Amino acid sequence: MHSDLPWEIWSRERQRRIEEVLARALTLPDVPLRLADAMRYAVLGGGKRVRPLLAYAAGEATGADPAVVDDCAAAVELVHAYSLVHDDLPCMDDDTLRRGKPTVHVAFDYATALLAGDALQARAFELLGASAHDGAGTRCALLARAAGAFGMAGGQAIDLASTGTTLARDALDDMHRMKTGALIHAAIRLGAQCGRTLAADEVAAFDAYAASAGLAFQIVDDLLDAEGSVASIGKTAGKDAANGKPTYVTMLGADSARTRLESLRAEAQAALARFGGAGRRLNELADWIVLRRH
Amino acid sequence: MHSDLPWEIWSRERQRRIEEVLARALTLPDVPLRLADAMRYAVLGGGKRVRPLLAYAAGEATGADPAVVDDCAAAVELVHAYSLVHDDLPCMDDDTLRRGKPTVHVAFDYATALLAGDALQARAFELLGASAHDGAGTRCALLARAAGAFGMAGGQAIDLASTGTTLARDALDDMHRMKTGALIHAAIRLGAQCGRTLAADEVAAFDAYAASAGLAFQIVDDLLDAEGSVASIGKTAGKDAANGKPTYVTMLGADSARTRLESLRAEAQAALARFGGAGRRLNELADWIVLRRH
Repeated sequence: MHSDLPWEIWSRERQRRIEEVLARALTLPDVPLRLADAMRYAVLGGGKRVRPLLAYAAGEATGADPAVVDDCAAAVELVHAYSLVHDDLPCMDDDTLRRGKPTVHVAFDYATALLAGDALQARAFELLGASAHDGAGTRCALLARAAGAFGMAGGQAIDLASTGTTLARDALDDMHRMKTGALIHAAIRLGAQCGRTLAADEVAAFDAYAASAGLAFQIVDDLLDAEGSVASIGKTAGKDAANGKPTYVTMLGADSARTRLESLRAEAQAALARFGGAGRRLNELADWIVLRRH
Repeated sequence: MHSDLPWEIWSRERQRRIEEVLARALTLPDVPLRLADAMRYAVLGGGKRVRPLLAYAAGEATGADPAVVDDCAAAVELVHAYSLVHDDLPCMDDDTLRRGKPTVHVAFDYATALLAGDALQARAFELLGASAHDGAGTRCALLARAAGAFGMAGGQAIDLASTGTTLARDALDDMHRMKTGALIHAAIRLGAQCGRTLAADEVAAFDAYAASAGLAFQIVDDLLDAEGSVASIGKTAGKDAANGKPTYVTMLGADSARTRLESLRAEAQAALARFGGAGRRLNELADWIVLRRH
């Protein structure tokens, strides 16, 4: 399982791998061309693929063949991509730039972007449900719960409602646990379940890692939004503050946010002790999430 | 299985039943209130429940307990409801009235309607994936394929592109086969699969029924849109023609549309011969679809 490869090589190989899996999943014969083009535009050729990497890394920790993880990694990324398309729409964040390119509704049109997002969500469940895995139904339910009202969509609703207000730290944590944390958690759970059967304390260890890594990811996002430039992050910078959205930077200040980030990284990595050397990729991913510059 | 009840009693009982199943599925503790309210508003207390009725009726044909059909019937209706919410948005059909009430984006707001639709789609797959059924994954894949780019979302994309143009009859059939037919087909397939194992010719019979009943349903919709009033259909009438959308009425004229409708009903009912008396509810549903006045 490439366990001797340096992180840079391993992660690049997995990113190349998921790109191929996604391109295959978005080969859509007989689908109206404009819709198919918009779906591919939204997904392919961009993105850090953090969630697929988390799925593959969790799979490494449980001895899963990456070929078995492919469908899970792709399904989670399709859900993530659809959420970006809808979040960027004029009625939501009204953003025109994503991954250094015009957003889908700018490159195509509003209605096509709406439909492309809808169809990407469906495609995720088609992929996951059709996989030969015994627990394909359970997998769909897990991803659906993370994507819907109890998770990502629910978090987005809180985000909308909180714009222009201040949130207590607990409320901000709750929002992000739903908005970004739930899907990150699903990526790790789905990847981990592709390997050997897990003991209860192993599931708890993955959950603890996911909780800390998910919040860390969000704090880095907030720091980059506050301090980054369009060139480095590929989307409009300073947008959250301009929109009056509560962030970890506006709430804690940049220095305290960084301190909290370091605690979360340490917690995430401590949770991996249970897995010994098999947790290596998740460990490295925690570093990568915290140190990333875009 | 109530096979001796008159149609009116049986269908009312099943409508009452699905209403309860949907209300349970939309009991959403810890979901932000405005989002949960919008989801319930979009689904509960309205709608003819044609797709759930088709699922239950197909289940009757294969000896399925209605309790086993519940999740399938609800999941299909949730997908249908989400599609109405998104279709009514300003960037799509921009409609303000649905089932005699203000549409979701009017009663709530644009962003909430978008999110409610997204979350309803996820909820459908959560329900279907979590059901104890052995083939829960296959069910999710079947519904997802019908809902996404290969089915409903794809048909909607063709609809968008064809506004203001004329379509040949074959192209109009293709559009509706995707836009409304695919989900009707999924309802029947999912319901039928809840009973005994099916022979290949039985599957073919269900497919033939679904194809004819699905197109018949659409032609009735077009006739009602052209001739109905707001009071009877609960949504803005005459909208398709005003929007320059090709319909069976604009293409064939009302008389020829009615003639075709009768052929489709006959074809749908002929396909049921294979099931003898067990096909009774599907037979009655074909009549109901054709004779409905709203």
